[in-house]
Amino acid sequence: MTKLALAFDLGGTELRGALVERGGRVAARVSAPTMAGAGSEAVIGQIIALAGTLLAEHPQAKVAGIGMCAPGPLDPKAGIVIGPPTLAGWHDVPLIDILGRQFGLPVRLENDANAAALGEWRLGAGRGSGSLVFVTVSTGIGGGVVVDGHIYHGRRGLAAEIGHMTITGEGDRCFCGAVGCFEAVASGTALGRRATRLTAPGDGSLLRRFSGDGEVSARHVVEAARAGDVSALELIEAEARWLGIGFTNLLHLFSPDLIVMGGGLANGFDLLAPEIRATVEQRAMPAYRDVPIVPAELGDRAGLIGAASLILWEGEPGAPLAIAQDEDNDASKRAREASHG
Amino acid sequence: MTKLALAFDLGGTELRGALVERGGRVAARVSAPTMAGAGSEAVIGQIIALAGTLLAEHPQAKVAGIGMCAPGPLDPKAGIVIGPPTLAGWHDVPLIDILGRQFGLPVRLENDANAAALGEWRLGAGRGSGSLVFVTVSTGIGGGVVVDGHIYHGRRGLAAEIGHMTITGEGDRCFCGAVGCFEAVASGTALGRRATRLTAPGDGSLLRRFSGDGEVSARHVVEAARAGDVSALELIEAEARWLGIGFTNLLHLFSPDLIVMGGGLANGFDLLAPEIRATVEQRAMPAYRDVPIVPAELGDRAGLIGAASLILWEGEPGAPLAIAQDEDNDASKRAREASHG
Repeated sequence: MTKLALAFDLGGTELRGALVERGGRVAARVSAPTMAGAGSEAVIGQIIALAGTLLAEHPQAKVAGIGMCAPGPLDPKAGIVIGPPTLAGWHDVPLIDILGRQFGLPVRLENDANAAALGEWRLGAGRGSGSLVFVTVSTGIGGGVVVDGHIYHGRRGLAAEIGHMTITGEGDRCFCGAVGCFEAVASGTALGRRATRLTAPGDGSLLRRFSGDGEVSARHVVEAARAGDVSALELIEAEARWLGIGFTNLLHLFSPDLIVMGGGLANGFDLLAPEIRATVEQRAMPAYRDVPIVPAELGDRAGLIGAASLILWEGEPGAPLAIAQDEDNDASKRAREASHG
Repeated sequence: MTKLALAFDLGGTELRGALVERGGRVAARVSAPTMAGAGSEAVIGQIIALAGTLLAEHPQAKVAGIGMCAPGPLDPKAGIVIGPPTLAGWHDVPLIDILGRQFGLPVRLENDANAAALGEWRLGAGRGSGSLVFVTVSTGIGGGVVVDGHIYHGRRGLAAEIGHMTITGEGDRCFCGAVGCFEAVASGTALGRRATRLTAPGDGSLLRRFSGDGEVSARHVVEAARAGDVSALELIEAEARWLGIGFTNLLHLFSPDLIVMGGGLANGFDLLAPEIRATVEQRAMPAYRDVPIVPAELGDRAGLIGAASLILWEGEPGAPLAIAQDEDNDASKRAREASHG
C-alpha cells in the first residue's frame, strides 16, 4: 500500500482530518465541530478520536506521520501552539510532543495559512511555480510565502502576517488596535460591514433581501453582484481596489512568481479580478505588473494537503508535483481564466 | 598573501572601489565621481581604470574575483544592469560578461541595497543574527532582506522594493506614480520637503538659517533638532512615526531577527529612535515588539563589503563573521545604545 500521512486542520469552528496519499490524493476525510470553548485537552481528544476513525477505516494504511495545521500564533519548530484567539484555553500547548507520544509517529506542525500556501504550491494553483504568496481573504486576512518549496518562516515562524500590514490611514480600527491594516479594510468582514452600513433593514435592497434583513455578509455582496445589483458591484469594486493595493505591496516586497488568493472571498474572484488587476497595473512598478494573480484551487483541502506534505515530501523541496486535480477544479479553472481575461 | 576581492560600488554620483581582505578589512580604497551622463562604456572604463589603480598599489594581491553593486533594477543571476534611473544610457548592460572578459576573474553583481544588507549582516550591525531587514533611508528608501546568509531575491531579484510599499493614502505623489509609498512620506527627501514647507526664506527659523535660506534638507532638520529647535524636533517626531509604521510592516511581513537602518538619515538615528520604538510598540502585534531596530555600522563601506562577500565567502552562508570593527563604529555604537534606551 502507498505511503500515507494523517493530516489535521484545526480551525476555530471545524476540525478536519484526512488520510493523504503520497501522490496527493485524499484517501479519506472526517470532520467534527471543534470544541473550541472546551480547552486544549478536549480538542486533542477529538483529534485522537478522528485519527482512530480514519485508521479504523483504513486498517492497512502505512502511516508515515502526522501533519497538522492550526491557527497562529504557533511555533512550528518547537511544535507549540502559543495561543490562538479562536481557541479558548490553549496556552503554549506542546502539540507535537503530545501527538508524538500518543501515536509513536513523527509529527509536524504549521500554521494554517502557511500550510495552505504549501498545499497550493504542491498541488494547487501554484504547482510548477518557483515561489508564491498565498493570501487567504475571509473573516480576516492571512497568508504564507513559499520559496523553492520552503515556507518562509522568519523569526519564530511569524513571517507573512499579511493581514496586519498597514496600507492606509483610514477605515475602522483593526482588532489588533492599529488603524489601516490590510485586514481591517479588505477582509470579508470589512466588505460585509461596508454593505451593512450602506443599506438598512427593510430598505428593499437586494443586499438586505439576500441577508434576510440582517447584517450583510461578504457572501451576500458576491451573490447580489452576480445578480447585477449596482450597489453590490460598487462594493466589489472598492473591495478589489483594497485587495489590489495590498497585493501590490506583496509584489514589491516578496517578488513572487505568482499570488494565489484563497479564503471565502475567492468565491467572488472572477468579479474582483478586473479591478484587482487594474489597481496593480496602476500602482505596481512596471517589472511586477505581469505577475499572475490567481484563485486558489484546493479550497478547504489546501491546509490538509500542505500539512500532509510536511510528512510525505519532507526534504524534497525541488519541483512541486503536477498531478491530475479533482472535483473542486472546474470552478476554479473558470475563475482562473477570468483573471487573465 | 591573504585572499582578496576587488569590490565596486557604482552609485549615481560616486564610483567607489576597494580591495577587501577575506577577514573583512578594506586594504585599499579609491573613488571617482561617476560619469553618470556619459553612458555605460565610459563608466565601465572608469571601473577598469580604478581596478588598475588598486592592483598597481597592491601588485602582490591574490585577487579571487570582482564583487560589484549597482543601482537597480538589475538581474543578479544574469549579471545584467537593466536600466537604473540615475545612470544615463545603461540599458541591459551585461556587466558580469564585460568585466569577466576584461579581467579573466569571476564577477558577481548585486543591487546596492541588497549588497549593503549583506555587508551589514556579515560585518556590521547584523553580524551574529540569523536574518535581518536592512532599510536605507536617504533620498529614497531601499532595502534588502538577508536570511541565513542569503539575500532574499524573489523573482528576477526584485524583492524588498521597500520604498514602494503603500503605507497610507495621504501625502505627495511618489515619483513612481502612486500615493502613499513609504518612500514618498518617510524618505530624507520627504522630511526635507516638509521642513521647507513649514518655513520660509528669511523667516529667521533655525531650519532656514542652517540651510542658508535655501531649501531645507533632512540633514538641516537633524542639525536643528540637535540644537534643540522645537519645529525640527516635531518634524523628527513625525518622520519617526512614518518610519515606525513602515518598520512595523516589515516586522509583520518578514519577521526578521533585527531591522538595520542605514542611509543618510541614520545620522539622526538617536533622535528618531524613541518615536520609532513607540510607534512599533503601539502598532506591532506583541510577538514582534522586542525585535531590535538598530543603526547601520558600516556607513558607505556596507555595499563594498557586501559585494566583496559575494566573492570571498560564496557558498559559506552559515554564521556571519565577527571581527573587530574600525573607525566608523564609535558613533554608531553610541547611537545603538540610544536605540535601546
